[in-house]
Amino acid sequence: MSDLNDLYNRQFTTQEQNTLLEVIFARRDVRGNQFLDTPVEQEKLETLLRAANAAPSVGLSQPWEFVLVTNAQTKQRIFEDSMAEKQKAENGFNEQQTQKYRDLKLEGILEAPVNIAVFCRPPQHKIIGNNSMPQTLEYSVVCAIQNMWLMARSLNIGMGWVSIINPETVCRELSVPRELNFVAWLCLGYCKEFHEIPEFEKTKWATRNDYLTTVSHNTFGNRCRSLDLTQNEGNHD
Amino acid sequence: MSDLNDLYNRQFTTQEQNTLLEVIFARRDVRGNQFLDTPVEQEKLETLLRAANAAPSVGLSQPWEFVLVTNAQTKQRIFEDSMAEKQKAENGFNEQQTQKYRDLKLEGILEAPVNIAVFCRPPQHKIIGNNSMPQTLEYSVVCAIQNMWLMARSLNIGMGWVSIINPETVCRELSVPRELNFVAWLCLGYCKEFHEIPEFEKTKWATRNDYLTTVSHNTFGNRCRSLDLTQNEGNHD
Repeated sequence: MSDLNDLYNRQFTTQEQNTLLEVIFARRDVRGNQFLDTPVEQEKLETLLRAANAAPSVGLSQPWEFVLVTNAQTKQRIFEDSMAEKQKAENGFNEQQTQKYRDLKLEGILEAPVNIAVFCRPPQHKIIGNNSMPQTLEYSVVCAIQNMWLMARSLNIGMGWVSIINPETVCRELSVPRELNFVAWLCLGYCKEFHEIPEFEKTKWATRNDYLTTVSHNTFGNRCRSLDLTQNEGNHD
Repeated sequence: MSDLNDLYNRQFTTQEQNTLLEVIFARRDVRGNQFLDTPVEQEKLETLLRAANAAPSVGLSQPWEFVLVTNAQTKQRIFEDSMAEKQKAENGFNEQQTQKYRDLKLEGILEAPVNIAVFCRPPQHKIIGNNSMPQTLEYSVVCAIQNMWLMARSLNIGMGWVSIINPETVCRELSVPRELNFVAWLCLGYCKEFHEIPEFEKTKWATRNDYLTTVSHNTFGNRCRSLDLTQNEGNHD
């Protein structure tokens, strides 16, 4: 591997581009009964957190904070909170859906050897770029999480993002100062397999869309049949 | 390249892990005078948007919407809005900082051959996972942006995220329905170089932190000297 601090203008090859694309497509949300109790090696954890720390951030604010949670008592309390929140979210499902929803195992808090709580720290001084869009601070933290998720997948380590959780419970259990915002609860560990098909698709809660259904050209709703933009210009330009 | 829909349980090699780490560390925010006017090929745009569309999303909601902007008039209006917002954000800098801030070229709206406005679409029906944390919908969109940013870097294409912008102006100029939220304005194109050092560090607006300064163990503020977690356990467990 090259020196990570000496990658000036590094040009990547087609093979390397394909590797990244494969990591992106092979990534999955990993949950409860998929995790193995094999410990995650120290150097792998370091790589994950270094990848997170190299994320883009508004004004180079690097506003992320990570709390690695291995304490069994804390995991148990967060698990119970997540179960309570899962139940609260039942409203709005019909009877059949409710049963199907209850059967879903949506997190791996107790099973994953390492959990990571992620927070956003407000800057100590004025930074450049978040004046009209203060939410870009939290967005920076999410970029760090996605770096970590892809890095984990490449290391053949599973990661799951638990969002059925009460931010106040997390902050209280981890003694997090009031000025920080809770962003994500992550479960990390080796796993039996990475699913071929995302679980929400397999259990018919959702379907994956073709990417073109989310793309417009110049004006919202001016859908592209292809990305040959010269075909879509009309007299817009 | 393998079939991207047939990566079941793909195991990645050390060399592939290093490639991803290098992409993550070589990624930069690319701005105005770095962009070349070389067009971005259709198949590269497709790869970027497919990478975005393979991002994780809460409840598999895939709430992202992309508007590709090539129209010169629209770019000009968004550029003018960004200049106005940049000026508004001067408050709070001292005189010396203000001059230094004015000299910074923070975006490449006119120079980049393709701009992409990114939005979050609220779901049409109840989804799983965003009940206690509705902001996870926008977070999903940010994950898609980070996938695109890394993919762009691997394709040796520069990307810049412009956040000094008024979301209302963007929504009006692109005729975006009121229920969507503006998340990001992205500038894309080939570039002269990828900077060795992030510009905010080079111009001394900020410094990059060592990753360990953002990591705690079990309780917030219980800083790790290393990620040998057995050394930090104490009687927490």
